[in-house]
Amino acid sequence: MLSTTARTTLGRSKERGSTDRNDLYEVLDTGMICHLGVIVNGHPMVIPTGYGRAGETLYLHGSTGATSLRAADGNEVCVTVTHLDGIVLARSIFNHSVNYRSAIIYGRARLVADHDERMEGLRVLSERLAPGQWDYARRPSRKELAATAVLALSLEEASVKMRSGGPKDEEEDYELPVWAGVLPLVTSWGEPEPDPLLPEGIATPVHILHRE
Amino acid sequence: MLSTTARTTLGRSKERGSTDRNDLYEVLDTGMICHLGVIVNGHPMVIPTGYGRAGETLYLHGSTGATSLRAADGNEVCVTVTHLDGIVLARSIFNHSVNYRSAIIYGRARLVADHDERMEGLRVLSERLAPGQWDYARRPSRKELAATAVLALSLEEASVKMRSGGPKDEEEDYELPVWAGVLPLVTSWGEPEPDPLLPEGIATPVHILHRE
Repeated sequence: MLSTTARTTLGRSKERGSTDRNDLYEVLDTGMICHLGVIVNGHPMVIPTGYGRAGETLYLHGSTGATSLRAADGNEVCVTVTHLDGIVLARSIFNHSVNYRSAIIYGRARLVADHDERMEGLRVLSERLAPGQWDYARRPSRKELAATAVLALSLEEASVKMRSGGPKDEEEDYELPVWAGVLPLVTSWGEPEPDPLLPEGIATPVHILHRE
Repeated sequence: MLSTTARTTLGRSKERGSTDRNDLYEVLDTGMICHLGVIVNGHPMVIPTGYGRAGETLYLHGSTGATSLRAADGNEVCVTVTHLDGIVLARSIFNHSVNYRSAIIYGRARLVADHDERMEGLRVLSERLAPGQWDYARRPSRKELAATAVLALSLEEASVKMRSGGPKDEEEDYELPVWAGVLPLVTSWGEPEPDPLLPEGIATPVHILHRE
């Protein structure tokens, strides 16, 4: 079960809420970019960034000098991951909607100091964005590690919202001669584009060529 | 030119910044979902929501009771729109990246009271999510309008960041027998799915069937 603190208890559209942790994991484990919300000089700042999950912890990373990471360390943050699945076309403008899956996580971010946890955080981050690369590309050097800040955020306080299916129209609108339904949004991988500087004879690895 | 206040002047990766307003418009006018950052009880909250642009103003909307909109009204907010275009696979984990286009807008949100501006805000919002529907589906009724809050945010203070192209690796890594390049992420429309409650004889309109 997800927590039900005041801010993760949904005020509106309760039927779109989920308290199933598997839904939370599914939303996080199929996304690639989150939006990190922090407070800088008293004002909100929302930054797109990669993330990874290990068990009940979300990991973020960035340059040690990045404003957003410095603002997050030790402070309350909000991390949101959103998948847009389709546009819901209703008979009225008012009932137009989107099909989506989103997760919102609240908590105090913590700068990770322990070497092993930092490596694990970077591994899950890397594997979320580019599965298979951690064991294929060159691992971070000591110097590269020193330039990288890794932040941890507990998944304890999280909420999931989803919508799927067709439009819900007003009773009287069903008579209108207006098409209604869903226009699905499909995300897929294109053909891998080799770096022009790649020497001949290095084939595209299967984990890139056949990424799901 | 985009403004260059302290928070929109990029600290890192300056070469990824753009000060061209056309880039800002392009990022906004090709997205469908933004992430709205507000402060609620002293803590950041990041909510995915639709938006629309009319000239130099961004419009957001929601239920009059929504926590995020009430927190935004009259206060400093941050709105971020992000397109993920591909995964940049480098020879080292450290130099992995993503190709993306993102816009970040800061400003004080204003609840729109004027009827005509509210309608214009709702129109551009609707047309961003579902182009062609404003003139096709039933327009909002007085009751529906009363239940809808429309927020305006000036585009005055905005920044755009983009990355495209292949990986940039460390000099010594180019010798490694590691494939490098870009795996593009492609977003497209699926086949329209008609509402099962649709009467026979209502064809899918061209603006839905052939949406770009």
